Amino acid sequence: MSTGCRVTIAGAGLIGRGWAAAFLRAGWEVVLWDAAPGVLPAAAEWVRAALPEMEAAGLAVAPGGGLRAEPDLAAALAGADYVQESVPEDRDAKAALFARLDALAPPGALLGSSTSTIAGSLFLADLPGRSRAMVAHPANPPHLMPVVELVPSPWHAAADTARFSAVLAGIGQVPVVLKREIEGFVMNRLQTAVVNEAVALVAQGVIDPEGLDAVMKHSLGLRWAFMGPFETMDLNAPDGFADYARRYGRFYEAMGRTLSVADGWPAEAVERIEAARRLATPRASVGARMRWRDRALMRLLALRSGMGGTS
Amino acid sequence: MSTGCRVTIAGAGLIGRGWAAAFLRAGWEVVLWDAAPGVLPAAAEWVRAALPEMEAAGLAVAPGGGLRAEPDLAAALAGADYVQESVPEDRDAKAALFARLDALAPPGALLGSSTSTIAGSLFLADLPGRSRAMVAHPANPPHLMPVVELVPSPWHAAADTARFSAVLAGIGQVPVVLKREIEGFVMNRLQTAVVNEAVALVAQGVIDPEGLDAVMKHSLGLRWAFMGPFETMDLNAPDGFADYARRYGRFYEAMGRTLSVADGWPAEAVERIEAARRLATPRASVGARMRWRDRALMRLLALRSGMGGTS
Repeated sequence: MSTGCRVTIAGAGLIGRGWAAAFLRAGWEVVLWDAAPGVLPAAAEWVRAALPEMEAAGLAVAPGGGLRAEPDLAAALAGADYVQESVPEDRDAKAALFARLDALAPPGALLGSSTSTIAGSLFLADLPGRSRAMVAHPANPPHLMPVVELVPSPWHAAADTARFSAVLAGIGQVPVVLKREIEGFVMNRLQTAVVNEAVALVAQGVIDPEGLDAVMKHSLGLRWAFMGPFETMDLNAPDGFADYARRYGRFYEAMGRTLSVADGWPAEAVERIEAARRLATPRASVGARMRWRDRALMRLLALRSGMGGTS
Repeated sequence: MSTGCRVTIAGAGLIGRGWAAAFLRAGWEVVLWDAAPGVLPAAAEWVRAALPEMEAAGLAVAPGGGLRAEPDLAAALAGADYVQESVPEDRDAKAALFARLDALAPPGALLGSSTSTIAGSLFLADLPGRSRAMVAHPANPPHLMPVVELVPSPWHAAADTARFSAVLAGIGQVPVVLKREIEGFVMNRLQTAVVNEAVALVAQGVIDPEGLDAVMKHSLGLRWAFMGPFETMDLNAPDGFADYARRYGRFYEAMGRTLSVADGWPAEAVERIEAARRLATPRASVGARMRWRDRALMRLLALRSGMGGTS
């Protein structure tokens, strides 16, 4: 991992905090900024607490990192090598913030956006420095889910994307380059495919909500924690993916036409899922369950890191 | 886990072998049968080798289990408490085999089918003992992927399903009860939603095959290894799943209408995925990679078992 560099995290909500932890773990100097400076002390405390938890779970933490909160944007950007914007999903707010980032950040600094729903074309196109500004969409939380979707806009060259990739791979994240803008990028399209079919199966009375979750975590999810769908299929036919496609492709095609991913979420199904969730995890236990989830992710990442093979 | 019971595994291919390992690990007496008795020695050797591997990865193995191969079906069924059919996906072959199983197995034995594509109504309906015969669809491989989809046919009562659930939960599998027959059951419908959208994203030139796999294994798959999609969403909004649905449901609904899960698998996309797979895992390394996958699954199961909380 790189060390000795400085990142400015612009926006100290849940996503910004996770980004700060990811850079801090890699030994970077992290400067936290937020338009509402009152949130900074709690955010910094959260980030500082995340590091020993990650180390205790077996994850590597590089030495030399530092963290400070800075309520003034110009001061927060001084000396930055990389800037990651993580403010709420509002196109005009993002456009206004990026105009300031582009004006104030050092000329060599890259400017990444955590947006999950807004194409870069819609809020970055008018920047003088638009070639250094790009959507770099993380999973949630960024310090425990290493993927970052790099989504170049039409004006970006391969060299722009490569610079973002180098920084993000350098801190141990996994940058994945999309070839063009598309609604939901890739991660949320795959998630939506699962979630909408899952809601439809409950709505159609095929399975209870807790059964649906059990199917995912006790079969598909176990495999997908180590390999994607293409490698999974590649290893499940004697002669690789093309062989798999010859044997089973027509079944997937036929079944695909029976899926209900374009259906809405009926209110009655939403109520049944909510009721099942509160039965499994009462309101008072939700916080403890979230901490369990984060510990589980840390330990899985440590397991993968120790085994190798999940690049 | 239960001990001291006897299971007959009818069909000693990959799925039957995994079933044999799952029952053997739980301390059952396992009798392997196959219509082609020549496969039995290698199958038995495979099952015997699986147990120490599982133990070495940290999984519990109950004492007292035993394994033998028996080429005669009547002899293989003598004294069976449970029978699991795992022969190739051919409706007439399954119907003929179940007629023999129903005639020869002890009256109290349950008869499960591993079919992944054929509704029980299509090959079990004419059995005199059809109430004890049910689709019990495992993931692949059964000893490393604990889910079993129990799919009752119209003639089954809740008590029939409950008897299957008790046996399968008793050996440490995770039985999940569907409420009715549906094409692909639940697991393969969720898998198809992901796989078809993944193929479409490659076909549309949005992402390379290796990038698609990276998105899954470095984000969604990590989470789904511990919790299903409903619990994931429940923990990602301040006031639970219903709150999540209010905030984001309309985005899922809108994005769902843009998915391409009903598209075919274009030959050109299949070729690009195959080429990317061979670059990542050359033909000569596929066997080693399959063993890596199985070790990874064992270690993840051991991690989950040690942490608790993934019921």
